[in-house]
Order: sequence, then C-alpha cells, then structure tokens
Amino acid sequence: MKIRLYVEHPLGQEQTVPLDRDQAHYLFGVMRQSVGAQVALFNGRDGEWRAEVVEAGKRGGVLACREQTKPLQMPPDLWLLFAPIKKARTDFIVEKAAEMGAARIIPVQTEFTNSERIRQDRLQAHAVEAAEQCGGTYVPEVSELHRLDRLLADWPEGRQLLFCDEAAAGAGLALDPALRGAQAPWAILIGPEGGFSEAERAKLKALPFAHTISLGPRILRADTAAVAAMTLWQQALGDWQ
Amino acid sequence: MKIRLYVEHPLGQEQTVPLDRDQAHYLFGVMRQSVGAQVALFNGRDGEWRAEVVEAGKRGGVLACREQTKPLQMPPDLWLLFAPIKKARTDFIVEKAAEMGAARIIPVQTEFTNSERIRQDRLQAHAVEAAEQCGGTYVPEVSELHRLDRLLADWPEGRQLLFCDEAAAGAGLALDPALRGAQAPWAILIGPEGGFSEAERAKLKALPFAHTISLGPRILRADTAAVAAMTLWQQALGDWQ
Repeated sequence: MKIRLYVEHPLGQEQTVPLDRDQAHYLFGVMRQSVGAQVALFNGRDGEWRAEVVEAGKRGGVLACREQTKPLQMPPDLWLLFAPIKKARTDFIVEKAAEMGAARIIPVQTEFTNSERIRQDRLQAHAVEAAEQCGGTYVPEVSELHRLDRLLADWPEGRQLLFCDEAAAGAGLALDPALRGAQAPWAILIGPEGGFSEAERAKLKALPFAHTISLGPRILRADTAAVAAMTLWQQALGDWQ
Repeated sequence: MKIRLYVEHPLGQEQTVPLDRDQAHYLFGVMRQSVGAQVALFNGRDGEWRAEVVEAGKRGGVLACREQTKPLQMPPDLWLLFAPIKKARTDFIVEKAAEMGAARIIPVQTEFTNSERIRQDRLQAHAVEAAEQCGGTYVPEVSELHRLDRLLADWPEGRQLLFCDEAAAGAGLALDPALRGAQAPWAILIGPEGGFSEAERAKLKALPFAHTISLGPRILRADTAAVAAMTLWQQALGDWQ
C-alpha cells in the first residue's frame, strides 16, 4: 500500500469515496492501478485509511475504506511565516513546511519582498503533495499573502514568535531554556532574500512576544533557513521531543 | 560590495587576479560592473578580500586585492554522505550542504540508489555558487560517487557517523549527550528515496562508529533530511554552538 492520496471526502468504516477525474487519471492512468488495488487515503480529519479500489474508470472511480491504519496526528500549533521569493524556492518552502510539521503556512509581504501576489491554490497543492509523500495525516492550510506589519499589529494573544534574524550575530542559537515546555502556540518568521529593513528589524525586536535567534555563521537561503528553524523548534518544543 | 566571486588564484595584499572569460561575462555583462567596481573575492584558502576592477573586457579582466575583509573560516570537519536522487534535488542537497557548512560532500551509491553516475563538475559548481551566496570563505569539495559499502569498509579511524534512519522510531532525536563536545571528525549519512535495504540498515547499526537518530514522526525527503540533520549536528557539535 505505497500510494497515499489526499481526498476531501469523509473517511470511515466501509465508507465509499468517489474519485474526481484528476485523481482517477493519476491512480489508474499514471500509477496503473485497477479494481482491487490498495491505497492509503487521508483527508486531514479522519486519520489514514486503507481503501480498496471498487470501481475504476477514465473519468472517475470509487474506493471503499477497509480499516483505519493511522489515527489523525495533528502537528503542534506552529505557523510558518515566510516572504515569497522566486517561484521554485517558494514551492520548496511550502513543501518543507508541510514535511516539517507546520500547522499553517502564511506567506507575508515585507518591505523587501519582491512579489506582491502568490498563487494560493498552487501552493496549497504543494502542501497536499508533501503531506501525501511524508506520511502525515494532516495538511497545513496555506494562507493568502498577508502584509507583515498588519499581521503583527493584529497578532493573536499568547502566540510566541521565533524571529530568525540573519544579522543577529549576538543572538542565541538555541531557544531560551525558559521557553522550553511552553505550551503556547508559536510562529516562526523567515525573512526575504535581502533581509528585513532596519525599521522592520527594530520593530520585530521590540515585540514582547518575539524571540530572536541566529541560524549560524553563514547566511542561509530562505528555504534552508525554514528547515533549520523548524528543526530547532521541533526538537525543543514540538513533536520531535 | 554585494558581489562575491570564487576564484582559484591566490589572494593577498595588492595581488592582481585575472578573470577568465566566464567570470568576465558574469561580472561585466550580466552584473554590468566596470573599472573601479568593488567585488568580494575568496578562493577557499586566503579568506575574503575586497578587490577593485582595474581592467574590464569582453574576454577577461583584472581585479586588484585592496584589503582582507574576512579571515579564512574553515567549517568543522563534517562530511555529508547522501544518495543522489533526481537532478534538481541532488543539486539542492549540494547547495544546502555548502550553506550549512559541510567540509566535504560525498555522493554515495546505496542498494536502492537509482543513479549510477553523477556530474561531479556540475555539483562542484553548485557548491561554489552556494559559498558565494552564503558569505562563506570555504568551498566544500564534492567527491565522485562512492559505493557506500566500500566507503564504510575503508572508513577512516576516529570519524563518527551520524546515521539518519527513517525507520528509527525508537532512536533518539538528539545526539547522545556523551558525544557532545567530542572533537572527533564526523560524517552524516542521508538515505536514498526508498530508504536503506534491511541488510544495509543492519550493517550500519552494527558499526562501532555509527550513531542512529530519527528525524521526527514524518518521513522527510532527502534534501529536507540533509538540512535537518546538519542543523542538529551544527547546534550540538559544530560552529552554531
């Protein structure tokens, strides 16, 4: 049962699940499966189910759930905020965030962000694909582009922010031990290529919920920084503990 | 001085450095620089130097070193061993390894590795580009493809191996505290898509110099796993301490 498919449909004992045209094309055309094949299904709510193909056609098909193979495993309540960059690297950041267990992915527009729009639907599809591939049972929601200043002005009560500052030579490389075990929700903020403006940096540092860390002596690309920061966070506070 | 160039030539006080055709095309054609422009040069041996363009032509040019702006900063003695995967992701792993501070990058052929050859020159060029971009003064050497079994049979005395096992549910997620501060050289091994074979896994676990860790509850792609493992290592034992 190596094929994993994300579906929107409810999953449950003996539940039948219709496939749309794209899914049927993928499963029967590309992957050459047919009636009787076993597929893993998840929908982000009902865990993972072993399902069997009971109808296979060119324009659709039907699967029947046979048994639950994993319960729903919610990731920790971690948001990843990042400034969109070139297309391929933006796609990678979304993929990496889903693999690393972000609960929500929020593209943000900073002073030095080049792009003023994103393709939310395309990025969401990358998150789905990453969840299919990494064995997760949850798909993070990719938000529309937010302006960073407005997001910070309207910041949710009690959510901590890990600010990865490439200019933070003096900042710690690990999370403050006092924060370990903090059950509060968190967010990680990765800057754009070209970094934050001085005004943004000063504002971020003054926020009472923000914690600045450095990511080592070399300047990491945004996609590398996203994985590195999420690794540090998952190990200290998340589901890698 | 935002442009950084890797050159093979020695660098030193008032040293002049000739540019080859490709470098001249990049600097004068693509980046539109001319005589008097300031460029950062490094060669992996003499640190970083501020250099000034003193001759600019279509087929070449000359720079003169003015002052050293960074000493040579060697990364820790860490090798990254990885099984080559699809072209774009192999390129990414090399780029990430250079950014994260690997001293040497070794593509390895495992039982489940698809590719039987690599383009060493192309991968080396990616490592150079990553070093130019991340501000490092050192360029890791990318080796030719090695067979993993032969590399392990001929393993250097005293080098520890961090084995990132996607099936290691029970393994620790952090390095054994007893290993912290260990000054021995290290290597990190990232498996291929499809993982290691059972025989390989058993052999790896039995090696006296190997330490198994898991990288969390989701299965990471090889490029994500490389960054995550190097983050854990750099923070515990490397130059992020």
